Amino acid sequence: MDEIRLIEVKEEIHADNKVVAEKLRDRMAAEKTFLLNLMSSPGAGKTTLILKTIETIKDDLRMGVIEADIDSIVDAEKVAAAGIEAIQLRTGGFCHLDASMVEKGLNGLDLSVLDMVIIENVGNLVCPAEFDTGAIKNVMILSVPEGDDKPLKYPLMFSVCDVLLVNKIDYLEASDFNMTALNERVLALNPDIKIFQTSSKTGQGIEDWAAWLREATTTFIR
Amino acid sequence: MDEIRLIEVKEEIHADNKVVAEKLRDRMAAEKTFLLNLMSSPGAGKTTLILKTIETIKDDLRMGVIEADIDSIVDAEKVAAAGIEAIQLRTGGFCHLDASMVEKGLNGLDLSVLDMVIIENVGNLVCPAEFDTGAIKNVMILSVPEGDDKPLKYPLMFSVCDVLLVNKIDYLEASDFNMTALNERVLALNPDIKIFQTSSKTGQGIEDWAAWLREATTTFIR
Repeated sequence: MDEIRLIEVKEEIHADNKVVAEKLRDRMAAEKTFLLNLMSSPGAGKTTLILKTIETIKDDLRMGVIEADIDSIVDAEKVAAAGIEAIQLRTGGFCHLDASMVEKGLNGLDLSVLDMVIIENVGNLVCPAEFDTGAIKNVMILSVPEGDDKPLKYPLMFSVCDVLLVNKIDYLEASDFNMTALNERVLALNPDIKIFQTSSKTGQGIEDWAAWLREATTTFIR
Repeated sequence: MDEIRLIEVKEEIHADNKVVAEKLRDRMAAEKTFLLNLMSSPGAGKTTLILKTIETIKDDLRMGVIEADIDSIVDAEKVAAAGIEAIQLRTGGFCHLDASMVEKGLNGLDLSVLDMVIIENVGNLVCPAEFDTGAIKNVMILSVPEGDDKPLKYPLMFSVCDVLLVNKIDYLEASDFNMTALNERVLALNPDIKIFQTSSKTGQGIEDWAAWLREATTTFIR
């Protein structure tokens, strides 16, 4: 299960993206496959966190990954090297995924043998927040070096997510990041969001995040 | 000169963005005002670097700043506090600036008394690379915590820029960032790009970058 398939996707303007997304959610419920949409800035650590997550839960749940990238296939190669089925969507300059692009990716996977698919969206805090991908849950990563003011500047992204992973907390000491201020800003936008502090480097917080993901998935596919 | 004016801009689809951009460049040449477009991911340090740059060259050159932000005015407030005229463009969810948005910002500044205007674009490595803003030079920041693989993933951004600032080099020790690999990847895409290593925190490299900017501006407005 370590081959990489590459699918080229293009923007088709779907006024009915929401409809496609709802249909996708119905399909995932019927297939009993949990679908997670992971978003962040470039370089916040999405791929590395996915690899850590795979390591932690691949014995419990059967996973697949859909990687979105503008031009390269390096992320899908890394995921495939971890023994997980990976589809690479190459967006050719396009800045986010919509539900029909995700559908194309899912069509390349055998959902009947998967409990969960993680979508790694394009690195961008703006456009991906505006498009429903059909995922069951939306998760974003904010890395410590990006700063604690990001909820002020990208409020929609923080508003649409079910989980925030504050990542690269191993940088906290070298930074003036204020975790209390961050939490207040995020919760003011989205009181129901679940916040985890993680570091892929030290492993800190990964177990807690993986426990949430395991629970969300088993609840959905039960 | 420390007031903030806020301009709301909306997307108007300009098939002729390039035409508007060329006209803007002619206007800047006539006004003898240099126009710089600064792009990066969210949190790479654009605003702080602008503040450091202001500190270094404001005695030599008369500067203005156009800040683009989706929803907040925090960046323009910081720039205005440094005694520089700042215009805030609030893009209302829009992911990049185009030439007509920049034109609206420039119309709010008195160009006859300015040698240079810096545009802080929306934090995003995708969309801003696709739209000519009318700037004379394009500069991007890549911060060390984002990783040395970004040229592989956002090649267009690295291709359209005249200068790359590798910023937050104070994080180098805590990171596995490979500067040699980064340089090779960037130069393969864009052999003419000028690369500076900077840290707003320690001040390292700021003088070299400011010298480039001073030279580019004085050459243009001579």
